[in-house]
Amino acid sequence: MQLTTILKMSYKASTPKGTRDFGPIEMARRDYIFNTIRDSFKLYGYSPIETPAMENLSTLLGKYGEEGDRLLFKVLNSGEPFSKIAPEELEDSNALSLRVCEKGLRYDLTVPLARFVVQHRNNITFPFKRYQIQPVWRADRPQKGRYREFYQCDIDVIGSDSLLNELEMVQIAQEIFKKLGVAITIKINNRKVLVALSQYIGHPDKLIAITTAIDKIEKVGFNNAKSELVAAGISEEGVEMLRPILSLSGSNTQKIAFLKEILSSSTVGLEGVSELEELFNLIESAGVGESVEIDLSLARGLNYYTGAIFEVKAAQVEIGSICGGGRYDNLTGIFGLPGLSGVGISFGADRIYDVLLATNTFPPATNLSTQILFANMGGEGVQATLPLLSKLRSMDITVELFPNNDRLRKQFDYASKRAIPYIAFVGSREIEDGEISLKNLKTGSEIKLPIEELDSIKEKIELLNL
Amino acid sequence: MQLTTILKMSYKASTPKGTRDFGPIEMARRDYIFNTIRDSFKLYGYSPIETPAMENLSTLLGKYGEEGDRLLFKVLNSGEPFSKIAPEELEDSNALSLRVCEKGLRYDLTVPLARFVVQHRNNITFPFKRYQIQPVWRADRPQKGRYREFYQCDIDVIGSDSLLNELEMVQIAQEIFKKLGVAITIKINNRKVLVALSQYIGHPDKLIAITTAIDKIEKVGFNNAKSELVAAGISEEGVEMLRPILSLSGSNTQKIAFLKEILSSSTVGLEGVSELEELFNLIESAGVGESVEIDLSLARGLNYYTGAIFEVKAAQVEIGSICGGGRYDNLTGIFGLPGLSGVGISFGADRIYDVLLATNTFPPATNLSTQILFANMGGEGVQATLPLLSKLRSMDITVELFPNNDRLRKQFDYASKRAIPYIAFVGSREIEDGEISLKNLKTGSEIKLPIEELDSIKEKIELLNL
Repeated sequence: MQLTTILKMSYKASTPKGTRDFGPIEMARRDYIFNTIRDSFKLYGYSPIETPAMENLSTLLGKYGEEGDRLLFKVLNSGEPFSKIAPEELEDSNALSLRVCEKGLRYDLTVPLARFVVQHRNNITFPFKRYQIQPVWRADRPQKGRYREFYQCDIDVIGSDSLLNELEMVQIAQEIFKKLGVAITIKINNRKVLVALSQYIGHPDKLIAITTAIDKIEKVGFNNAKSELVAAGISEEGVEMLRPILSLSGSNTQKIAFLKEILSSSTVGLEGVSELEELFNLIESAGVGESVEIDLSLARGLNYYTGAIFEVKAAQVEIGSICGGGRYDNLTGIFGLPGLSGVGISFGADRIYDVLLATNTFPPATNLSTQILFANMGGEGVQATLPLLSKLRSMDITVELFPNNDRLRKQFDYASKRAIPYIAFVGSREIEDGEISLKNLKTGSEIKLPIEELDSIKEKIELLNL
Repeated sequence: MQLTTILKMSYKASTPKGTRDFGPIEMARRDYIFNTIRDSFKLYGYSPIETPAMENLSTLLGKYGEEGDRLLFKVLNSGEPFSKIAPEELEDSNALSLRVCEKGLRYDLTVPLARFVVQHRNNITFPFKRYQIQPVWRADRPQKGRYREFYQCDIDVIGSDSLLNELEMVQIAQEIFKKLGVAITIKINNRKVLVALSQYIGHPDKLIAITTAIDKIEKVGFNNAKSELVAAGISEEGVEMLRPILSLSGSNTQKIAFLKEILSSSTVGLEGVSELEELFNLIESAGVGESVEIDLSLARGLNYYTGAIFEVKAAQVEIGSICGGGRYDNLTGIFGLPGLSGVGISFGADRIYDVLLATNTFPPATNLSTQILFANMGGEGVQATLPLLSKLRSMDITVELFPNNDRLRKQFDYASKRAIPYIAFVGSREIEDGEISLKNLKTGSEIKLPIEELDSIKEKIELLNL
């Protein structure tokens, strides 16, 4: 049996798990989101770049923690990938995967950016402000608001340690969500404070376990996170010391004062607190402090953050974070170019889409589709229509000729389903009279337009519209 | 040793073979191409869709011929892909690949479209006119003009067998390349004619071998293609019968007349010739016949074509085809929805980019970047600048504040390398006087602008420009 025959028998048309198609309506809505985001990025002076979907696994591995490594989609080497594999290698799936896969799909846009900066450093002006809007892939278990392919819209500033950059991230997030009509809370924390907290509870060596567990508290609750921390070798007393800190309430000023006190003996801790304090002063000066708050339970799982971390939550929809980021001091260092601090945030277009849909916030769709459908009246009608189409398109009017000489009812049906407002007829009578018949499909009204007056069709059609 | 340490030691920042990064300048040029193409697609009434980068391999396999199957990038299953593999399976790399990979990266946009149409048939209005602009991936040997990741810009009409659709493909190609300023030749052939030719030379069973070989003639010459055909079991006499046909010169009318004669006994052949004749009549009626020619040596390798096939060549640059397509009668049938004929063409954005670069045809870059850089004068200067930035951005002026309080020389250098035309100063003197100093970096001229006159900055800056 032929391969295609076998496939045909069992085939069910579907996209892979966790991935989706986008039809014309979804595309218009997504473009609205992308354009809003892109316009703000440009207004603040960010320049676009794009990187390939595939990166070498040596670029990706070890940057996102153990779980991140597991969630990478790996791409099988071409040729004969298994020709040199010994049978005993089958026992270790992980190691064998790396033997037969050199490439993987990008997991975010930050690590590819770091690779880009190192590779093109001689052609880049620093501080480098770039934006990037591309899909990323994660082999995560799909669920509401979580897809295996989703778009990130990132800005980053590489090569400047100034907290003015952190301020700019807050400003841009405020501005974009205001334009989109999404009520938000921006949560801010600092990795240095988390480092100090791990010292404070007596486990400076367990930072990764602690941030990973803190990161999950909102989903699984403090007690489940606690079990995880105890299992990771942290004393129960230590974990309990975190409880009041992570659930601290009060104003940002109060939180900063509290941290200064409990972390008074930690150099790195005080550094983190002072960064938080300076950032909140800048936020105040710029007048964008509304709904920005310090959240000490914000950890963000990614290994590479070293300073400020951000997360934006939609106020009215439960969907996890719709935007997040932070500062990373050593990311380009891993790739051989130390001394470049970076900071960035990423807007999750797919979750923002879901939020706008849930809150019914998309603007009403403008009719971007065809304005006039020319009915197909067969032979000489088609002949007479072809030059009219070219003329109208040269006037930037979107027109179509129905391709088949089908019953008119079918052609009307097509126009109506496509929401095409006008249908035009060029039949033998119209050819004789040198005219086009134009019918408004909503009102049913009709006019005749002499072909020599085609230039004025826009005015005539507007008349018909009233 | 830690994994990251190992990676660091041997790491060289690079993209995978055959893939590229795009910086800000390349992005502006690519946007110019995409926007030109997209505008034409819309003007003819096509609606956008997007499909996931990964498709199930059952969707992709067997659609592009044996070579196409080999060029698919396969994505390794998540979890423990090798846990159930027996040692003897290592002997067959191909079979094992399919055991451990269920997904692959899309190879073109046509097969995903067919899958899309079948999956969403109940929500689609036919004839379905869609455009799609997304990257595709092929594990081909990289060379000039051939990348492993490249963008296709496709239009297709699904559910209409009218040759008016083929005409539209020709019109759109003419229009887009005219707008882009690229001189082209459009070559047209018909698969039915190729089927008839394989009968004519006595080898109706060897159609795939014949089209594959014909497809290579331009690259490898007739004699090398001939060896391949003879190796495939076609008699030398048979191959020699093709030689005068494939190199046929003369007008399109002459070629059609010649074909009618030699294929007079073949039903399918005469059908193909009559389709060619009707299409060229339509092309003439629409007045787009310039540089459109019948090329009997045009075969196009893809298995799924059944009628017209197209290819567009740049007249002034040797780079292979920059646009191609054809009609496929059975593609959705393979996925379980027979009876929908489709036709489409695909514009290769990356090769078009190379052509525009080689012919120096890109329009001069408009300055889309930052208009004014505010120098960072430290503490109170920054404080005073922050509200000005917000004000200017609300006027849609792209402004930046240099993030670090570095030496002015460094800040000037940044502005100059980024081609930012103006630099603004808000230092202690300006704060006292309630002014901004504005310097034109090209002319060196300076003005003072009172802060209360910020609204008129556009006029003031234009004055400065003169």
